[in-house]
Amino acid sequence: MATEDNQQKKLSTEPYKGVRDFYPQDMQIERYIFDTMSRVTESFGYSEYSASILEPTELYQSKTNDEIVNEQTYTFTDRGGREVTLRPEMTPTLARMVAGKRHDLTFPLRWYSIPNVFRYERPQRGRVREHWQLNADLFGVSELDAEVEIISLASSLMKAFGAEDNDFEIRMSDRSILTSIFEELKTSEEVQAKVMRLLDKRAKIDDFDTQLKAILGEQSESFVEKLESTSSSSNLELVLSQLKNLGVTNAVIDTSIVRGFDYYTGVVFEVFDTSSENNRSLFGGGRYDNLLSLFGGDKIPAVGFGMGDVTIRDFLETHDLLPPYNARTELFLCTLTQSAKEYAQKLAQALREQDINVEVALSDKKVGDQIKIANKKGIPFVICIGEDEIKNESFTIKHLESGEEKTLKEDAVADYIFSKI
Amino acid sequence: MATEDNQQKKLSTEPYKGVRDFYPQDMQIERYIFDTMSRVTESFGYSEYSASILEPTELYQSKTNDEIVNEQTYTFTDRGGREVTLRPEMTPTLARMVAGKRHDLTFPLRWYSIPNVFRYERPQRGRVREHWQLNADLFGVSELDAEVEIISLASSLMKAFGAEDNDFEIRMSDRSILTSIFEELKTSEEVQAKVMRLLDKRAKIDDFDTQLKAILGEQSESFVEKLESTSSSSNLELVLSQLKNLGVTNAVIDTSIVRGFDYYTGVVFEVFDTSSENNRSLFGGGRYDNLLSLFGGDKIPAVGFGMGDVTIRDFLETHDLLPPYNARTELFLCTLTQSAKEYAQKLAQALREQDINVEVALSDKKVGDQIKIANKKGIPFVICIGEDEIKNESFTIKHLESGEEKTLKEDAVADYIFSKI
Repeated sequence: MATEDNQQKKLSTEPYKGVRDFYPQDMQIERYIFDTMSRVTESFGYSEYSASILEPTELYQSKTNDEIVNEQTYTFTDRGGREVTLRPEMTPTLARMVAGKRHDLTFPLRWYSIPNVFRYERPQRGRVREHWQLNADLFGVSELDAEVEIISLASSLMKAFGAEDNDFEIRMSDRSILTSIFEELKTSEEVQAKVMRLLDKRAKIDDFDTQLKAILGEQSESFVEKLESTSSSSNLELVLSQLKNLGVTNAVIDTSIVRGFDYYTGVVFEVFDTSSENNRSLFGGGRYDNLLSLFGGDKIPAVGFGMGDVTIRDFLETHDLLPPYNARTELFLCTLTQSAKEYAQKLAQALREQDINVEVALSDKKVGDQIKIANKKGIPFVICIGEDEIKNESFTIKHLESGEEKTLKEDAVADYIFSKI
Repeated sequence: MATEDNQQKKLSTEPYKGVRDFYPQDMQIERYIFDTMSRVTESFGYSEYSASILEPTELYQSKTNDEIVNEQTYTFTDRGGREVTLRPEMTPTLARMVAGKRHDLTFPLRWYSIPNVFRYERPQRGRVREHWQLNADLFGVSELDAEVEIISLASSLMKAFGAEDNDFEIRMSDRSILTSIFEELKTSEEVQAKVMRLLDKRAKIDDFDTQLKAILGEQSESFVEKLESTSSSSNLELVLSQLKNLGVTNAVIDTSIVRGFDYYTGVVFEVFDTSSENNRSLFGGGRYDNLLSLFGGDKIPAVGFGMGDVTIRDFLETHDLLPPYNARTELFLCTLTQSAKEYAQKLAQALREQDINVEVALSDKKVGDQIKIANKKGIPFVICIGEDEIKNESFTIKHLESGEEKTLKEDAVADYIFSKI
């Protein structure tokens, strides 16, 4: 069979373009990022939820961002003729779930999830077609306390990852500043969305003025004037002062911050890396009080943010904050004979019940080569099992790094390992 | 804006057909299942890996199961003209990853992952279009020690979920029994695959004999005769005796076990629920020594299994083994005034740094109603913050279930909670 297979065209070992394989070393970093996200977010009283990556396409057709929906989603027709989209972001799913059980849920509601989300775009640094993203959202609080809590959570996350205050900056703005200008100028909703999208990419383009004029015509000068003369709002001042009170000293007001999604209604914020090597927006969020009304029923006020694994990993790399690789396995059992393998599996079983992670050597390699494997895998302790050990029920445990050895009875092995790690 | 939205067609709050939303109570069960899977599998020395759900379609066209690939995958063309499939199972991805770095990896290799996998099929009990599945695989061991370890891991998982020996049964067979019969009968590979698929669904169909005759013609009687006269193999006897040695007493040999995938080459097994309410196969696996040669290079022996979240959850429900819901938040801070809210956020921050999960009341509800919220969410402890507490820096902590109260200074709160939980 194998011969026939080898004659066939070989299959490629490359993943699909623009997505990542996570070999154990990379997965340990992902796991560290996810665990830190969960731990800190739960410490604020947030509960985890989740959902499928598959959503009816219509969920995105109202209020996300036209560019994303029309050009960057993975959308297809299923075998039953339904239009399906791989979620490009989590907020519409979250809004759907909260709206669906609004009468059974206890508000204020604090929820989080770490979903994978999909965008069809040209792969480049920090831009992959699938990434994971912490979403933390607080529903049912219309006061600014919600913004303060959400931004303080964002700050606590950065610190839990090892960032110092001067490694990042939280820039806040207020969509209501734009809303009042739009009201004054009687700008239509459609034109508002275009202007916001243009503002969101202002830093990345050279011809902002020309493009703005193409959208707003004669009003463009007056729009810029009004925007530049508004450097703050009372909401922003209040949030800033409460954040300072909580020890968040690296928050600033910056009215050029817009955020790409149409659904924001109030305070918005973005967290920036301050290092010169990686000076860019890491993640952000804001208030979106109207989104749930798309599903019918009253509005439910909401504030939240999304924090992606790729940008955080880049940040951790830039600031040398990645944790070292640590094997999760504590003990490696070398085996000298077939009966030693069987005995070792039994010993391993007893130690696993005492919460020690144990790998049993099942190869027929020489002892020296077996120990090399343990070393390569970063497993700290080794016990070799031969006929003597089986007869005496006594084992010499070796700490590979220090070379220290100790001979122990079975029931003392777990405690010894715990005392050393 | 909200008024205009309400006039639009309301969006549905239903998820896409055949997939699940995980509200926090359901998510806690998923989390329990995933954490148990990780903990037990890591105790055997397995390292976590992961990959994208998106795979090039060609990955599945060689060796999975034609019925699944042609009728049950989610396959579509991306915006760049590539054929993409949402993985229907993890093994091809795993094989691709191991083959891709075969020269850098240290064998034997023990890897696990808990991916979501997709199948387009009619939703029914235990069959959804997206489910999560522990995959644990051991590469590089051609001896039966690998089967023994993998099956003993499967057994340890069941026991970690609270199952007793008589709640489940491990039924083992050996593909090599079929292989020798096929060799004797000179059956073509294509016909072999058809026969195996038929055998796999034997228990579910009435016209097995007719269907077999349609495939094997005159040879069908002789095939059945040979199969029924073979009740075991030396490999099975060896695995069985080693498992008994390890205390796995509920393994049996049952040559009617086949498994649905074409790539198995040796011992295969399925774990069955023994309860009369849920008497069915829960999960299974086996040896697949040839799969990696699809990617070129030498064969790499492999044994593994997949354990799905839906069937395990059904099993836990049937046997009353689901864990009770426990709030992850330990303390709820009631707030009587605006300044109390701000003070409470600061107190919460200090307690979170001591590993207490704290929710701050941000609503303007009365104290009694705030405490009701804490109760409804299952949060065990409450402290109410008013002007007196702020002035005296002294807090009365109440255990909601017992009604017990104690007045403490800030620095004693965390220790008090730890002592009670």
